[in-house]
Amino acid sequence: MLNESINAKIDSGMQHLVADLQRLIRQPSVSAKNEGMTDCARLVAQLMEKAGIQTEVLTLDRQGDRKKKDIPSVIFGEVRSKTNPNSKTLLFYNHYDVQPVEPVELWKEDPFSGKVSGGRIYGRGSADDKGELITRIKAVEFLLKKYGDLPCNIKFVIEGEEEIGSIHIREYLLKYKHKFAADGVIWEFGYVDNNSRPIISLGMKGLLYVELVAKGPIRDAHSSLAVLIENPAWRLVQALSSLRSTNGEILIEDWYKEVRQFTREELEIISNEPFDEQEFREQHGIEKFVSNILGNEAKKALVGIPTCNIAGLNSGYTGKGPKTILPSSALAKLDFRLVPDMNPKTQVNRLKNHLKRNGFGDLIEIGFIHGERAYRTPIDNPMLTTVKDSAAEAFGSNPIISISSSGTGPMHSFATILSAPCFSVGSTYVFSQIHSPNEFTRIDFLNKATKCMARIIERFGTVGE
Amino acid sequence: MLNESINAKIDSGMQHLVADLQRLIRQPSVSAKNEGMTDCARLVAQLMEKAGIQTEVLTLDRQGDRKKKDIPSVIFGEVRSKTNPNSKTLLFYNHYDVQPVEPVELWKEDPFSGKVSGGRIYGRGSADDKGELITRIKAVEFLLKKYGDLPCNIKFVIEGEEEIGSIHIREYLLKYKHKFAADGVIWEFGYVDNNSRPIISLGMKGLLYVELVAKGPIRDAHSSLAVLIENPAWRLVQALSSLRSTNGEILIEDWYKEVRQFTREELEIISNEPFDEQEFREQHGIEKFVSNILGNEAKKALVGIPTCNIAGLNSGYTGKGPKTILPSSALAKLDFRLVPDMNPKTQVNRLKNHLKRNGFGDLIEIGFIHGERAYRTPIDNPMLTTVKDSAAEAFGSNPIISISSSGTGPMHSFATILSAPCFSVGSTYVFSQIHSPNEFTRIDFLNKATKCMARIIERFGTVGE
Repeated sequence: MLNESINAKIDSGMQHLVADLQRLIRQPSVSAKNEGMTDCARLVAQLMEKAGIQTEVLTLDRQGDRKKKDIPSVIFGEVRSKTNPNSKTLLFYNHYDVQPVEPVELWKEDPFSGKVSGGRIYGRGSADDKGELITRIKAVEFLLKKYGDLPCNIKFVIEGEEEIGSIHIREYLLKYKHKFAADGVIWEFGYVDNNSRPIISLGMKGLLYVELVAKGPIRDAHSSLAVLIENPAWRLVQALSSLRSTNGEILIEDWYKEVRQFTREELEIISNEPFDEQEFREQHGIEKFVSNILGNEAKKALVGIPTCNIAGLNSGYTGKGPKTILPSSALAKLDFRLVPDMNPKTQVNRLKNHLKRNGFGDLIEIGFIHGERAYRTPIDNPMLTTVKDSAAEAFGSNPIISISSSGTGPMHSFATILSAPCFSVGSTYVFSQIHSPNEFTRIDFLNKATKCMARIIERFGTVGE
Repeated sequence: MLNESINAKIDSGMQHLVADLQRLIRQPSVSAKNEGMTDCARLVAQLMEKAGIQTEVLTLDRQGDRKKKDIPSVIFGEVRSKTNPNSKTLLFYNHYDVQPVEPVELWKEDPFSGKVSGGRIYGRGSADDKGELITRIKAVEFLLKKYGDLPCNIKFVIEGEEEIGSIHIREYLLKYKHKFAADGVIWEFGYVDNNSRPIISLGMKGLLYVELVAKGPIRDAHSSLAVLIENPAWRLVQALSSLRSTNGEILIEDWYKEVRQFTREELEIISNEPFDEQEFREQHGIEKFVSNILGNEAKKALVGIPTCNIAGLNSGYTGKGPKTILPSSALAKLDFRLVPDMNPKTQVNRLKNHLKRNGFGDLIEIGFIHGERAYRTPIDNPMLTTVKDSAAEAFGSNPIISISSSGTGPMHSFATILSAPCFSVGSTYVFSQIHSPNEFTRIDFLNKATKCMARIIERFGTVGE
């Protein structure tokens, strides 16, 4: 009955949820470019205060430490249960920053339009992560409006650097460890598949992000001199091609040494996971997968195979026409996805040694941009039942359990510093083009995810786990 | 005596030469971007008319052929000798277009400033090729002012597409073959070495310029999907690394098949050519040459070794911060320098076959941007003496003879269509940073080159070769 009544409240409040999400989308917050971050943090805090959440803007500022001044704030929110103040505490982890919008020319609308069309809301951050964030704020707001209280304590930790690798969240977690203390964490996103089935994910891959820079002559030279001057773009191409085989295998010595093997239980979960390969290929416009893998191998890859990806390449003249130069430098941006129990610091040293051993030590500079360890919440954690049952009710279909997302987040830091299990569940349609042009969110999934969050709060406060 | 007196005229007219060159530099004319081309053509024609050269602006326009409308004009100029109308005809080939200025941020001044400082004039085109052009116009102007006539017939052919591979000069040469008829061609540039010695070059390398494009997913994807989606940047890197060994050797089958071997005479000329390796390395900020070649091997490479050069690379996100995407496409711009008797059309087919055979046929699109054959004027051509003696007098030191420049130009078309020998001689200091930021020309060399051109005209009209 409780459930029915909050669902009606959520349904009747959807236009407010959509309007608030549009406000969030229209406020750019591109952490990679430090664009709009302070204004967006202020807006998020306003929306939370309006929802009845006590809000605080946290920083890492220390007197005299000017370097910390430009670090985006973390917005902390809290609602203590009046009737049940000693109950467990549920923490929502989200982020208010978004990916850069490039390539701008491929957007059909202004990337920050928040345009509603065909049951979708368009714009950078509409799904990742402003769409997810609004469902959680609104779930709390609707529950408070309906009952004047929550059945358990709630916390929000909303950071501004998720899209640049959550560079400082570990420092925030260590500094505010007691303030953030919680018994369970709802992760910042959760996917919903093509058949409206929610996917509950228990883990995240890790990440190592580096820049490789090859240096050549002190300035661009006339390309006729390529007979004598070593071209840094060639050096970079040679270095890169030594890192990975054509079938995706990483050729750096000991790269896979610490990779944790799947348990029999994990393999069973993977094999039970549905995965519409054909739909995936159609959505991305590809004909086959890397190394021609299929079926279960593709699913295992998403969950637990490390990658080496070229995120960007730049050198010389790339405009129209035949400019004949020999560039003075060449840049590659690389991201390596890691799995348990790989350590980014160990891996970057292996990369450096590999380049040295292969004769690239003199020319290639390695910029360590970010490292993050992988994490998986154990599949026997009792909170999984709460999350699973809530998602099943809200979405009206059996959730899919995934032992890990293919993406990366600071789950290892949250889980180990707060000693709390982490669960990804939310509103993001798997084909909503996050990180790409024309990102959108589905309003039907925002509605169901809000109901799911309300149900998790209700259960978390009443079920004695 | 004739010589002394025109030299005095040139010395006293230098400030006008510098001012006219500044006007030319300040008028951008970037053919790759179709920027300022018409205005620059008009300015060149004005300066020529002012010099007493009868000028005509030629086009490839044909009624109804709209595609030809955007092709830059060729400026044709002519002075017929009054006293010697049946004399031989000397043709000056030059170009009024310049390279793009990118990377703009490395210029210390506005790239089109024409700033005079320390005996140099700075700006894009100051050396290549507006500096060369002005010495030839002024040589004619000073001779006409002094004597009211020239001892031989003179023609100018000044094109606007040299920096984009002289795409239409062959068509112009074929269309205006009779108008352009000449007995000898002074090529658009000529180098002067670090010891103020003019370098007379008898040849040019050829060029094949292509774009390779690898296509991946229909839009940029989240890089976590790199476990399944083939990354086009990897495909491109793999394709590129199959083209060339680390020591510069091109690995495409039959690439070197038609390469003409050096004759014993050519090898002797090469071995007599001075080449300050240390100075070259210092100017370019490099420690060693490709494949560690030295001495005579380095000189042979400049004159006669084919190259495969990466002029540009572009893919994905190359800005600040760790954007984690899997790009939807990747681009490489490649230029291959060719030597006699390689044919660009044959070579591009070999490249295509190579990519197909190595499994890149499905993904890589090859855009053929331009092809140009190499050419060498035979070293026993009698006009060489005229050019050599004139340069020796003007520069006050023995010219260096080179059998070929390392650069490319349409010499093969001029030499074969007009049946005329071609000689490179001019004012460009070897370290004047052509095609690079902060291009400059040396005023002392402009002065000497103008004297050299005047002397060539005088000799060409009087020596019965």
